[in-house]
Amino acid sequence: MNILERLESGLVIGDGGFVFSLEKRGYVKAGPWTPEATVEHPEAVTQLHREFLRAGSDVMQTFTFYASEDKLQNRGNDAAKTFGVKDINEAACKLARTVANEGNGLVAGGVCQTPTYLSGLGKAKVQEEFHKQTEVFKANSVDFMIAEYFEHVEEIEWAIEVLKTMNVPVAANMCINSEGDLHGIDAGKCAVRMANAGADIIGVNCHFDPFTSIKTIETMKTALDNNGLRPFLMCQPLGYLTPDAEKQGFIDLPEFPFSLEPRVCTRWEMQKFARQAWELGVRYIGGCCGTEPYHIRAIAEELSEEHGRMPLGSEKHSPWGKDLTMHTKPWVRKRANREYWENLTPATGRPESPGCSCPENWGVTAGSEELLQDF
Amino acid sequence: MNILERLESGLVIGDGGFVFSLEKRGYVKAGPWTPEATVEHPEAVTQLHREFLRAGSDVMQTFTFYASEDKLQNRGNDAAKTFGVKDINEAACKLARTVANEGNGLVAGGVCQTPTYLSGLGKAKVQEEFHKQTEVFKANSVDFMIAEYFEHVEEIEWAIEVLKTMNVPVAANMCINSEGDLHGIDAGKCAVRMANAGADIIGVNCHFDPFTSIKTIETMKTALDNNGLRPFLMCQPLGYLTPDAEKQGFIDLPEFPFSLEPRVCTRWEMQKFARQAWELGVRYIGGCCGTEPYHIRAIAEELSEEHGRMPLGSEKHSPWGKDLTMHTKPWVRKRANREYWENLTPATGRPESPGCSCPENWGVTAGSEELLQDF
Amino acid sequence: MNILERLESGLVIGDGGFVFSLEKRGYVKAGPWTPEATVEHPEAVTQLHREFLRAGSDVMQTFTFYASEDKLQNRGNDAAKTFGVKDINEAACKLARTVANEGNGLVAGGVCQTPTYLSGLGKAKVQEEFHKQTEVFKANSVDFMIAEYFEHVEEIEWAIEVLKTMNVPVAANMCINSEGDLHGIDAGKCAVRMANAGADIIGVNCHFDPFTSIKTIETMKTALDNNGLRPFLMCQPLGYLTPDAEKQGFIDLPEFPFSLEPRVCTRWEMQKFARQAWELGVRYIGGCCGTEPYHIRAIAEELSEEHGRMPLGSEKHSPWGKDLTMHTKPWVRKRANREYWENLTPATGRPESPGCSCPENWGVTAGSEELLQDF
Amino acid sequence: MNILERLESGLVIGDGGFVFSLEKRGYVKAGPWTPEATVEHPEAVTQLHREFLRAGSDVMQTFTFYASEDKLQNRGNDAAKTFGVKDINEAACKLARTVANEGNGLVAGGVCQTPTYLSGLGKAKVQEEFHKQTEVFKANSVDFMIAEYFEHVEEIEWAIEVLKTMNVPVAANMCINSEGDLHGIDAGKCAVRMANAGADIIGVNCHFDPFTSIKTIETMKTALDNNGLRPFLMCQPLGYLTPDAEKQGFIDLPEFPFSLEPRVCTRWEMQKFARQAWELGVRYIGGCCGTEPYHIRAIAEELSEEHGRMPLGSEKHSPWGKDLTMHTKPWVRKRANREYWENLTPATGRPESPGCSCPENWGVTAGSEELLQDF
Repeated sequence: MNILERLESGLVIGDGGFVFSLEKRGYVKAGPWTPEATVEHPEAVTQLHREFLRAGSDVMQTFTFYASEDKLQNRGNDAAKTFGVKDINEAACKLARTVANEGNGLVAGGVCQTPTYLSGLGKAKVQEEFHKQTEVFKANSVDFMIAEYFEHVEEIEWAIEVLKTMNVPVAANMCINSEGDLHGIDAGKCAVRMANAGADIIGVNCHFDPFTSIKTIETMKTALDNNGLRPFLMCQPLGYLTPDAEKQGFIDLPEFPFSLEPRVCTRWEMQKFARQAWELGVRYIGGCCGTEPYHIRAIAEELSEEHGRMPLGSEKHSPWGKDLTMHTKPWVRKRANREYWENLTPATGRPESPGCSCPENWGVTAGSEELLQDF
Repeated sequence: MNILERLESGLVIGDGGFVFSLEKRGYVKAGPWTPEATVEHPEAVTQLHREFLRAGSDVMQTFTFYASEDKLQNRGNDAAKTFGVKDINEAACKLARTVANEGNGLVAGGVCQTPTYLSGLGKAKVQEEFHKQTEVFKANSVDFMIAEYFEHVEEIEWAIEVLKTMNVPVAANMCINSEGDLHGIDAGKCAVRMANAGADIIGVNCHFDPFTSIKTIETMKTALDNNGLRPFLMCQPLGYLTPDAEKQGFIDLPEFPFSLEPRVCTRWEMQKFARQAWELGVRYIGGCCGTEPYHIRAIAEELSEEHGRMPLGSEKHSPWGKDLTMHTKPWVRKRANREYWENLTPATGRPESPGCSCPENWGVTAGSEELLQDF
Repeated sequence: MNILERLESGLVIGDGGFVFSLEKRGYVKAGPWTPEATVEHPEAVTQLHREFLRAGSDVMQTFTFYASEDKLQNRGNDAAKTFGVKDINEAACKLARTVANEGNGLVAGGVCQTPTYLSGLGKAKVQEEFHKQTEVFKANSVDFMIAEYFEHVEEIEWAIEVLKTMNVPVAANMCINSEGDLHGIDAGKCAVRMANAGADIIGVNCHFDPFTSIKTIETMKTALDNNGLRPFLMCQPLGYLTPDAEKQGFIDLPEFPFSLEPRVCTRWEMQKFARQAWELGVRYIGGCCGTEPYHIRAIAEELSEEHGRMPLGSEKHSPWGKDLTMHTKPWVRKRANREYWENLTPATGRPESPGCSCPENWGVTAGSEELLQDF
Repeated sequence: MNILERLESGLVIGDGGFVFSLEKRGYVKAGPWTPEATVEHPEAVTQLHREFLRAGSDVMQTFTFYASEDKLQNRGNDAAKTFGVKDINEAACKLARTVANEGNGLVAGGVCQTPTYLSGLGKAKVQEEFHKQTEVFKANSVDFMIAEYFEHVEEIEWAIEVLKTMNVPVAANMCINSEGDLHGIDAGKCAVRMANAGADIIGVNCHFDPFTSIKTIETMKTALDNNGLRPFLMCQPLGYLTPDAEKQGFIDLPEFPFSLEPRVCTRWEMQKFARQAWELGVRYIGGCCGTEPYHIRAIAEELSEEHGRMPLGSEKHSPWGKDLTMHTKPWVRKRANREYWENLTPATGRPESPGCSCPENWGVTAGSEELLQDF
C-alpha cells in the first residue's frame, strides 16, 4: 500500500529526530545541522533508521534535512564542496531504502526551508535548490515526499509546486504554532494554502512541543473544515517541552540547542500526545528533534490497537512499566503499573532552574537584512 | 601501555552507560537490565561502543552488566536459559575487542553485584557466580577487570578476591555516596577495605550524580591518604542530577527509571564535573547510566590538554558552542561562546514539576527477607 | 472633590485587602470571611485603615465585605445573631470615616455577592439583602459605593440598581478574568452591561493576579470603547501570583486559602502592575486579598508623579531600595538600586514546590444544586 | 512565675518578628532596621504586640532591636539625635509592659550585635553600648533579658557579662547555623561558651529557616550534653525558607530583603517546626523576621496541649482548616481537614523562578576593613 492508502486504512507512524540524535551520538554538527553523515558515517545513520523501524515507524525518512546545496555551503560549511548535494542525498536514499526493506517500510524523501529564501532571492532561485534534490529523489524512486520545517507558507507553496512534479504523494509540514507563520499568516490560512497548493497530507513538525502542536493542528483542522478541504493530518513535534516558546519556537529559547536536556519528554508524555493526536484525527504521527526511538515506541504502544500491531522493540518493553516486576528491589517493583507513571509529575533534579525561560524575540524574518545568508 | 601505565602517565577516559542508552534505543529491558543484546543485537552494541570510542573513551568496557548467571535467570528472566551466561559474556568480549582495535583502546571485563548476595547465600555461592564470568574474561584476554556497582563492601571484597586470581589489574567501584554502603560502613572505610583487598584503582560508579560522586571520592581519598594508601582514583557517575537522592541512590527516586528525563546532565555540567574530578586527583573519568556519547566527549574536550588529544568526535563539535556561528539566525550565533553556556541556568520547561523529589527510604538491604531473590 | 472629580483630575489609589490581612493578624476567620471584627476588635480594623492611609490610599473602603445578612448567618455563622447586620456595617462606616478624616480620604461603602444569589432565590430576595446594607451606608453618609467581588453580571446589575438609588457615584467590579463571568458571559459584555446599568467606574477586583487582571481590563476597555462607553476604569487585583488559575480564580487553586504564601507579590511586581495599569488608562488602582500596606505604598511610589505626592509611609521607604545604603554589610549596600531589584527573579526557597498547580474545575455555579447555601 | 519557672514547668511561646512586620506596615526602614517607631508610632507597635499576645505569646519582647546608640547613629541614621537611645528603649519597655499586662505576659528586654563590634573597637566600647540600654531596662523592671542576633560568640559573651549584672534571667541566641559563628567557631562550642558565660537559656534566632535552625540546636544540644551543661533551649527562627543560605544566613541571599515573599512559611510548615522543636527538647519557641502573628498562633495550636491552652486568637481559627466547612463553595469545603493541608506541596505561582538561589559569599567579618562602620 502506498502512503495514502495506508493513511486511508488507519494510522501511519513516522520516525523521530535525526539531527539531534546524531549530534549526541557524534555525527552531526550543531549549528549547520547538515546531514553529510550519510556519506561520512553511513553505519551510524543506518543504525538509527533501524532503531526507529524497530520502534514501530512505518516510514523511513531520508536523512536529507538541510541537504539543499545552498545550506551545504552556507556560512563556511564545506559539505557541498567535499561531498556534494547529489552524493549526500543519494546516500540518504539508499540507507533509508535498505532499512525500509528490512520491514514493511516506505521511504519518504524530504526537503526543507532554504537559506536562499531567508535571503530573499526569490521563487526561481529557491525552487532551483529544491530541484537539485528532487532529481536525486526521483532517480532513487522514493515512495512519497515530505516538505517540512518551513517557517513561511510562501516558501512551502513553492516547495509543494516542485514536489508535485514528481508524481508521488506530497506531505507538507510547517514549523509554526497556532499564531501562524513568520510573516504573520495564521495557522489556519497556512493549512488552507498548503492544501490548495496540492499537498495530500498537512500538518506541523519541529519548533514546538507535542501539546502546543496539537493545538496548532486543531486550528488548521478548523480552517480546513471551514473550507471544505480534507487532506490527511500529520504531526511530528519536538521531543522537548516548550510551554514558554513563542512564535519562533524553540530556537528562541535560551537553552537552544545545548541545554535542552531538562525539557526532554518522558515516554508517558509521548503516549499522552499520541492519544490526543489520534483523537483529534491526526493519522500520521511521529516526532522531530529530541524524539528518540523510545519516544516513537511509546506512540506505537499507545496506539497499538489502532496500528494493528505492537512494535518489534516492545519485546524489550512491556506497556506501563510492567517489566519492573523483575527488578531486584521491592519498592521499585511497586512502580510496575500505569497509575504510578501516569500520575507522577517528575522532579527536575534542578533546584536552581526555573520552570520557564524568557524567549528571545527578534521579530525579524525572511527579507530582513540581518537574515541575509553567507553562501 | 596497560591501564596502570596509562593512569601513571595521565588521564584515562572511560565510556558511558550502556543499559540506559540501549534501553532507549530498544535493546535492553528496564527491570532486569540484563545484556543479552550482545547476542541478540550485536550491531547495536557495537555501534554504541564505536560512539564512545569516537567520543574519546580509552576503554571499551564489555557489556556484561548484570551478566552473572543468577541475575540472568532471576525473577522470570529467561536470558540464562535462552543464551547462557557463557555466550552473553563471550559475545560482549568480542564486540568490545573489535571496537577497541579500531582505536587504541583497552578492553575491560566487568562484574557487578549479584542477587545471590542480596539473598544472603554466602561467600562461596557469590564467588561461584563471579567465577562463571571470569572464566570467559580470561579466555578472551581482557586487558583488566572492573568490579562495579556494588552496594556492600563485603561483596566487592569477595569480587576483588576472585578478580585478583586473573592476574590483570583490578578496578573497584561502589555505587555509594559519602554516607557509605548499605550496611552502614562509611565511604572512607569502604575505600580502605577495597584497597586492602588488592584493588589497583578505586572509586564510585552509578547511583549518584557527578557532583555528589565528587564528594564521595573526596571522602575516600582522605581515608586512603590517612592510611597511607595510594591507589588510582576512578569516577563513573550517573549522567543524571540527583541532589535529592539519599543513601540508596537514584533507584529510590520516584522518577526511576522511566521519568528521569528532566535530570539529564548538559554537556556543560559534564565539563564542570570533569574539571573538578581531575583537580581532585581522579585519573580514570567516565560515566554510568544516563551518560551518552556526547557526555563523554564533553569530558574529553574539557580535559583534552591533560588527555593529550581532542576526541575524534570533536570534528563535529567545537568547544563551547563555537559552531553556532554557522547557524542561520543571528541571535543563535550570539550564543557561540563559553560565557553564554557556562552561565546559563537552563529552564526545565516544566512549570508543574518541582526541583526535588522525596526519595523512598525502605532501609532494608542484603539479609532482609524482602530482598530474597527469586531465581 | 468627590470620587468622580478626583478621577477626572488624575489618579485615585485604593486600599488593599482586609480579610486576608486581618486573618493573619488574628481577627477574621477563613471560611466565612465575615467582618464582625468591626464590632469585636475595632482597634485592629482602625490600625489597618491607618496603614493604608499612610501607604497612600485615597479611599477608606468600609470593612463590610460579606456583611450582607444572609452571609452573616450562612453555614453556622452566628455573626448575624450576635452582632447584627446593622451594627457590623455601621461600625465599619465609623471606623473608615475616622481614619479618612485623619487624611484627605474618602469613604466608600461596599457590597458584594450574596449566598442568596448563589442559591438561586431571585432578584427581589437578593436586592433585599443589599437594601439592608445600603440603609446603613446612607445613614452614615458614605462618599460613594463600590459593588465588588461579583462572579455573575446579572447579580452585579441588581446591585448597581440598588446602589443607584443612593444618589452617590457607583463603582462596579467583578472578580472575573477575560473569559468572563461564571455563566459564560465574556468580560467585554460584562463591562458593557455594568456601564449600561449605571456604574460610573468599572473594573475587576480579587480572584486573579495583577497581570491577569490587566488583561481583563484590556478586554473590558475594548468592548466599552466599541460601544461608545467611557466609564472610569478600576483595578484592585490579588496580591498573589496566579498564572495557573482558570475561570473561577484563586479559590480553585489547591493552595487556597492556607498555602498561598509562595505566591505573594513583591513590591517590585506591584510597581510593574501599577505602571501597566496606569498606561492602560486605569485611574482607580488598588488591591484586594493579599495586598498589604507595602503593596499599596509601592503603587503610590511608582505613580507618585501622577498622584501628585509621595505617600506618608515613604518616610520609611526610599524608592528602589535606596535605604540599603545604610545597611551594615557592604554586599547588601550594593543592592541599593533599581537595576538590581527590577531584574531579580526571586528564588522560592522551595525546591520541592512546582511553579504551577492544577486548579480544580468544578464548573458549577449559581443555580446548581451543589451551591445551595445553608442559612 | 518568672521565665525560668515557666520553662521548668513546660512550654514558653515567644513572639514573632517586629522589624519585618512593621516594615511592611510602614513604620520601619529596611536598611537601618532601627526601632524609633516606639516613639514615632506607638499605636502601631502596641497593635503588633497585641496580635502576638492574642496569637499565644507568653513573652512581650521590647521592640529594641538594633536600639544601641551606635546603631541609631550609624551610616546617616538620625534616630539617635532625634529621639535618643534612652527614649526609644524606654518607650519600648512601656509598650511591652502595657500589652503584657493585658494577658499574663512577661516582658523581656533585648540587646543585639553592635556596629562597634563589627568595627573592631574592642570589649570596653562594645559593653558601653550595652550599658546604655540596660540602664533603661533596669529602670523599667523588665522580667528577663535576651541577647540575640549575634554573629560572633565573643560579642555575645561580652553581652551576657553585662546582662548578668542586672540580676534577671538571661537568654542568649546567636544567628548562626551548625557551621558556627563568623569567626569559624562551631555551633556546639558557641553554645558551651554561652552557657559558661552564664546564660540560662540558649539557642538561635533569625538568619535561617525553622528546619535549619532545628539542626543547629541539635548540634548545640549535643555539645552542651557532652559538657554536662543543661540550660533551657530556645529557638526563634526566620519565617522564611532558606535551604540555600550558607553561613551568613539570609542576608546573603539575593532576595534579601525585598524579594523574600516566595519564601514565607505557611502555617503548616510552622506547625511542623513547632513539633520538631518540642520533640528535640526546645522549651522556648517563637519566631524572628518574617514570623507574623498567624505563625505564632500555628505554634500555639500545634502545642496547645503542652502549653495548657489554646491561644485567644484561635476563636478565629480552628485547627487544620476546619472552618472551611463554612465556605460557600463545596470544593473548598473539602479542604477542611488535616490530611489535605499536611500533604499539600504548595506551587509557587512563579514558573520563572528557581527553587534555590546562589548566595553571596563575601567571607569577611568583624575585623575586616570593609566592615568598618560609619557612625
